[in-house]
Amino acid sequence: MEQQTQPNPATNINPKATNNHNQPSSWAKKAWRLLSDVRAQSPLIQCITNFVSMDLMANTLLSAGASPAMLHSLEELNDFTPCCQALCINVGTLTPSWLPSMKSAAQLCSQLDIPWVLDPVAVSASGFRLKACMELVELKPAVIRGNGSEIIALSMAFTQPSKVSIVKGTDSIHESVDAVEAAKLLAKSSGAIVAVSGATDIVTDGNQVVGAHNGVPLMQKITATGCSVTALIAAFVAVDKIHALDAAVSALAVFGVTGELGMKNAKGPASLRMHLIDALHGLDEAALESHVNITSLS
Amino acid sequence: MEQQTQPNPATNINPKATNNHNQPSSWAKKAWRLLSDVRAQSPLIQCITNFVSMDLMANTLLSAGASPAMLHSLEELNDFTPCCQALCINVGTLTPSWLPSMKSAAQLCSQLDIPWVLDPVAVSASGFRLKACMELVELKPAVIRGNGSEIIALSMAFTQPSKVSIVKGTDSIHESVDAVEAAKLLAKSSGAIVAVSGATDIVTDGNQVVGAHNGVPLMQKITATGCSVTALIAAFVAVDKIHALDAAVSALAVFGVTGELGMKNAKGPASLRMHLIDALHGLDEAALESHVNITSLS
Amino acid sequence: MEQQTQPNPATNINPKATNNHNQPSSWAKKAWRLLSDVRAQSPLIQCITNFVSMDLMANTLLSAGASPAMLHSLEELNDFTPCCQALCINVGTLTPSWLPSMKSAAQLCSQLDIPWVLDPVAVSASGFRLKACMELVELKPAVIRGNGSEIIALSMAFTQPSKVSIVKGTDSIHESVDAVEAAKLLAKSSGAIVAVSGATDIVTDGNQVVGAHNGVPLMQKITATGCSVTALIAAFVAVDKIHALDAAVSALAVFGVTGELGMKNAKGPASLRMHLIDALHGLDEAALESHVNITSLS
Repeated sequence: MEQQTQPNPATNINPKATNNHNQPSSWAKKAWRLLSDVRAQSPLIQCITNFVSMDLMANTLLSAGASPAMLHSLEELNDFTPCCQALCINVGTLTPSWLPSMKSAAQLCSQLDIPWVLDPVAVSASGFRLKACMELVELKPAVIRGNGSEIIALSMAFTQPSKVSIVKGTDSIHESVDAVEAAKLLAKSSGAIVAVSGATDIVTDGNQVVGAHNGVPLMQKITATGCSVTALIAAFVAVDKIHALDAAVSALAVFGVTGELGMKNAKGPASLRMHLIDALHGLDEAALESHVNITSLS
Repeated sequence: MEQQTQPNPATNINPKATNNHNQPSSWAKKAWRLLSDVRAQSPLIQCITNFVSMDLMANTLLSAGASPAMLHSLEELNDFTPCCQALCINVGTLTPSWLPSMKSAAQLCSQLDIPWVLDPVAVSASGFRLKACMELVELKPAVIRGNGSEIIALSMAFTQPSKVSIVKGTDSIHESVDAVEAAKLLAKSSGAIVAVSGATDIVTDGNQVVGAHNGVPLMQKITATGCSVTALIAAFVAVDKIHALDAAVSALAVFGVTGELGMKNAKGPASLRMHLIDALHGLDEAALESHVNITSLS
Repeated sequence: MEQQTQPNPATNINPKATNNHNQPSSWAKKAWRLLSDVRAQSPLIQCITNFVSMDLMANTLLSAGASPAMLHSLEELNDFTPCCQALCINVGTLTPSWLPSMKSAAQLCSQLDIPWVLDPVAVSASGFRLKACMELVELKPAVIRGNGSEIIALSMAFTQPSKVSIVKGTDSIHESVDAVEAAKLLAKSSGAIVAVSGATDIVTDGNQVVGAHNGVPLMQKITATGCSVTALIAAFVAVDKIHALDAAVSALAVFGVTGELGMKNAKGPASLRMHLIDALHGLDEAALESHVNITSLS
């Protein structure tokens, strides 16, 4: 989500407005409609997420108008999960005791046609984590969002498993644009919309590739911004589940725009975090329309 | 805790100052005395709470002058809990592995005459959670604080168990004033002071009903404000455990006032959160006295 | 880390610049070099820490330029821990289920010559916790950082175990300067550098004693500042593991300076927290050099 108004020409990705649907103003209107629907419907979003991100994720959802519920006990899923409009699963601080809840909740959602979103944080940090993420992908997430390194590793796990290796940390060592082919392969093999965060946020269904060019680099210095935008995707998918690609693109763009707006008053990462959430709460149509920068990349 | 300077006339609740004790200036002095005592005594408050609220709850207690301790291991309770001046139990991210600690700590407090406070977050989210909360109520909390929906569900569980149903999310779908009778019934059946957060915060011992009319609506868009005010109630009860109703009313009013003061500089929920904590740390007698709005409602 | 430009004369500690190494300008240059190395190398710091501090700790590490990874599953340690440049272990919300991960990760680091840092939060809160911390100390941390009460209790546990008693809360009831002898004893018996936070931060290897006099008292009203500076020590040790004393002193001074810089714009503890993180991100050599106040105390 770095600030970058044009895709990198070196990456061989050419933006083109292939149809009316992909014209900038059309995307801005779509993003605004989805945000308005989240505010009007206040969808209940269950989050089974890591300990680091719970606070910012809940505040992101509240600021967007959604209703977050951080609830992960296996004993509660049968009663609670069917009441939700979407589910967000994030493996950031995964342990064996949390995995059964993640899988049960995902399974319930798939059975009940409730969309759910997967954030495979640091998927290649361990064999245990990679296997867990692969099992979760089998349970049919509507959207998978990660950084370049995560999407490349997860895609490779399905297509060239022998080549996956354990890599450093949770920060990406790949640009999002380097992950386009991996994202397309993962989308095709999983049936999910795949979103790759980066200087340009990439979203694909395996064929169509859309780029959201909003955001500022300093957002990467705030923990849990990636986790939070995944939850925002869940909220957008909750109000338009048959257009998961549009919802994912719109959520990424909206979050990026709030980063740009927040940056105007920020003095560093902590004040950016505050101003970003304030901006998400107060975002109006004019500001969204004048900032949204979404292009077709295929 | 929405901003509302007069109780809703449609709800049939008539504020009246029944005695000197309930005059506004008397309440303001009481609230100031309790806050001053928290600052002077720095009571140790053990919190067994959910993962989302730990940060804001600890910062709320520190800003009020109390000494928070987030400690929940069953192995430590016998050594540690007896050293505390109050305990706060919050079931927000409840799992079976945490429940024994909650029950043991509550039991220890009841035996040692240490006041403890229960926050039955999303009590009706599942049968498991409802049963857990009912078991905790049996262990004699000094105060139970919830939103309208939570108090109605918990009260009904004791009085008309067949009518309790699983409801959506953690946000209230009832106004606090709709929960007055349920709160009185719950107070009578449990022996606890019952507090209901809302546009008007309601507090009752089963007979007397007091309303605190401070706060601003935007506080509902910050995660863990409800959890944090419950912890603040624990801090106030810690310094005056024989007047738990006064302590609960005062804590709710003080927190609401800090929301009003914080709102003067806030641009959205995240900056409100910051200014609210700053205001709690710096609150002086004049500001408190000019803002506190507490009335007798019975 | 209270603001105090001169050590307390009553404590019988006389600052003296024993050699060129200990001249203020030398310390400022050293601190700047270490911070610059953290920014350049972005060391991967694994944190096995308490639930309260995860957010601020991750943001502190990110703002300093390091790469945090909150990962604590026993199943992942063999794959992940060897990739780290340092490990931070904090027992704030310790339970029996987390202890094996802490011990295994510490052991792996000791075997692989990866430096690790221990924060024995509230070590004397229970017999269980004290025993756990003693077992961790046996696994050869490079640095142990606590407040005065924690270091006195932990030191006594090794030297006069019969005298350790359970004490109140997580806040210190001892000044750091009262813990100098205990810190020296603990350093000698454990082989670790021992750091004691307080109005003056004390660091010792058992012989040399250095004082860092930066910081402001209001930092004590923000939860997890102690935890976060321990993580910052881990980041500094990661880039210069053979000079762990220098790294610990420098990290404490840098964090204290960011508190002083943040205090210029703060209106209370919550805004201080924000400005402190912003200041850490933006800290330049001139500001660091003009604020660092480190002296030799032995």
